[in-house]
Amino acid sequence: MPQPRPAEPGMTLDAVETPALLVDLDAFERNLDRMASLLQGKAARLRPHAKTHKSPPIAKEQIARGAVGACCQKVSEAEILVDGGIADVLISNEIVGATKIARVATLAKRARIGICVDDEGNARDLGRAAVAAGSTIDVLVEIEVGGRRCGVDPGLPAVALAINVAATPGLRFRGLQAYHGSAQHLRDHANRRRAIERAAGLTRETIEALAVAGLDCPVVAGGGTGSLMIDLELGVLNELQAGSYIFMDADYGAAGTTGLATGFENSLTVLSTVMSVPRAGVAICDAGLKAMSFESGPPRIDRPAGVRYAGPSDEHGNLEVPPGATLKLGEKLHLVPGHCDPAVNLYDWYVGHRGNRVARVWPVAARGASA
Amino acid sequence: MPQPRPAEPGMTLDAVETPALLVDLDAFERNLDRMASLLQGKAARLRPHAKTHKSPPIAKEQIARGAVGACCQKVSEAEILVDGGIADVLISNEIVGATKIARVATLAKRARIGICVDDEGNARDLGRAAVAAGSTIDVLVEIEVGGRRCGVDPGLPAVALAINVAATPGLRFRGLQAYHGSAQHLRDHANRRRAIERAAGLTRETIEALAVAGLDCPVVAGGGTGSLMIDLELGVLNELQAGSYIFMDADYGAAGTTGLATGFENSLTVLSTVMSVPRAGVAICDAGLKAMSFESGPPRIDRPAGVRYAGPSDEHGNLEVPPGATLKLGEKLHLVPGHCDPAVNLYDWYVGHRGNRVARVWPVAARGASA
Repeated sequence: MPQPRPAEPGMTLDAVETPALLVDLDAFERNLDRMASLLQGKAARLRPHAKTHKSPPIAKEQIARGAVGACCQKVSEAEILVDGGIADVLISNEIVGATKIARVATLAKRARIGICVDDEGNARDLGRAAVAAGSTIDVLVEIEVGGRRCGVDPGLPAVALAINVAATPGLRFRGLQAYHGSAQHLRDHANRRRAIERAAGLTRETIEALAVAGLDCPVVAGGGTGSLMIDLELGVLNELQAGSYIFMDADYGAAGTTGLATGFENSLTVLSTVMSVPRAGVAICDAGLKAMSFESGPPRIDRPAGVRYAGPSDEHGNLEVPPGATLKLGEKLHLVPGHCDPAVNLYDWYVGHRGNRVARVWPVAARGASA
Repeated sequence: MPQPRPAEPGMTLDAVETPALLVDLDAFERNLDRMASLLQGKAARLRPHAKTHKSPPIAKEQIARGAVGACCQKVSEAEILVDGGIADVLISNEIVGATKIARVATLAKRARIGICVDDEGNARDLGRAAVAAGSTIDVLVEIEVGGRRCGVDPGLPAVALAINVAATPGLRFRGLQAYHGSAQHLRDHANRRRAIERAAGLTRETIEALAVAGLDCPVVAGGGTGSLMIDLELGVLNELQAGSYIFMDADYGAAGTTGLATGFENSLTVLSTVMSVPRAGVAICDAGLKAMSFESGPPRIDRPAGVRYAGPSDEHGNLEVPPGATLKLGEKLHLVPGHCDPAVNLYDWYVGHRGNRVARVWPVAARGASA
């Protein structure tokens, strides 16, 4: 059921079957190097998020530049990462259900596996499964620091759960997960900074409360591409989980996280073909709702200048073409997806290119790994 | 790279790995039967859209109930349908680019293949490829009837292109494609009716203009689930391309197209597990942006009453739980996707169930077939 490879190395981009997921390898590698240089001399390590790329070879390139391992959100992603040779994987998420928990416990025999918990019963289930499998699972207690998603309250509730985890056979208490997801995309930088500072304050208080209870907290994990510079400055998190920095997207661009602020560049585009030029001022391309997600807005089109992606249908994109610009039937366009992670999850293949030439085609190995 | 099967026949739904794409087979079959009964005694035939289901076995169930074949949007979908035993496939869309056109021409040696055109040069390219392959391609001239997407203007421009197609070796002019996509979802029924009546009028005028030019127009194709009842009443279209009727979704529900208006029921849900119950009034489930699309709104939750899907992140759904209702860790929820087609495209497997029991697991064969 995987789709055929849309390109082969050596081809020019004109010959790539569209829609296709393109990675500008030069920009991508500059992003990898830029992150390594940002972390140079800092106490924080990088555990980049593989939910963005779903690709063991990319995780390896990150580890080769100093990352301590990978993190991901799903058991199925963790299995694919371990199968692909990643020896240290954190599932930065809660995992519920007997079969999934058993898979985590089994996986922990083959690699160092961490997981997050925010519930005593869930921790007990994980511990039992680990004992049954003969493995040990690293555990981070997730605290709610403003993202209003998973996590126990910071302070005493977190300490109570941590004491519980530390006393559970099969589990090894390793520290805290303190991720503020919604703050990553705040347009107003002062608001974003305030949200991250508040999260860091709650995290620091929890670390102190753990110390009072006699619990070490070697790992303080969280952060994303949008909060990276603030997280580095505040110095509370010591394992950073940025993922999008390798690709970036139109939403991070609009939020001012691309370019000057971080040095990260957009490297990911969806290559699309103009399939109809029905009226003056309008062109239709072959990439719609099944070629990327739109909840963070439509894709950005940088060239030709002024062309705007007005709206999607399932398999089409409606493009506004301003006076003076033209789009010809068959012309290829680079669309910068609104949101990189869900876009990647729609494709079986990455098409890596340098300039106009395809250099490398490799699978999105964990595409669809949502279970 | 396909994901493992999330279930096996005989399991109860509790044991299905989530998120999973569920089809209530009883409701699904009632939808198939309902459509057959709506078309009984009508001049219009059904050529249901396979872009919805991407599954040859479903296309066969539709053909067994009287459909003349299938339609789809992409060459890759058409190839998978023909490989799966569908002998008559219309690509209800323009196809551009030398390799894709060559694939269409080759496919037309193995099955009856139709395609839409809205450009003379594109028609010429298709004809040349068909001659080179030794095949004949059926062609519908697509006219713009209000959807503001592909298509030439109705009337003379359509006739000029049709004359051209009819004179092109390798092509067989078969009629018109007159689809009004945006009208399918208009909430106001009077507005929807007006839009469809206007489209039908433009289509009728074009058929008359073709007749004046001496061209028969055996196929007048278009329509969708949202316009079905109006299309049947107006009687201008004779090949109806409804697709969503087999599954329905939250958007069609909100537009009043489910239930009394048509008799179609929702049969498609995403099964999701509650993975965190962090605070009073909140639960987090394991289905987010990678489990369905959100451009048509969040999924609907029918049970427990009052639970609302407040918002997604990549792998999470934030649920509001009203006072009095409870959601337990590990509890399973049926989410009715906002928009069925892009949701289906995210999954490798259909899990067909009857009541609480898995009855059939089969692949979404053309999942990701966007090229």
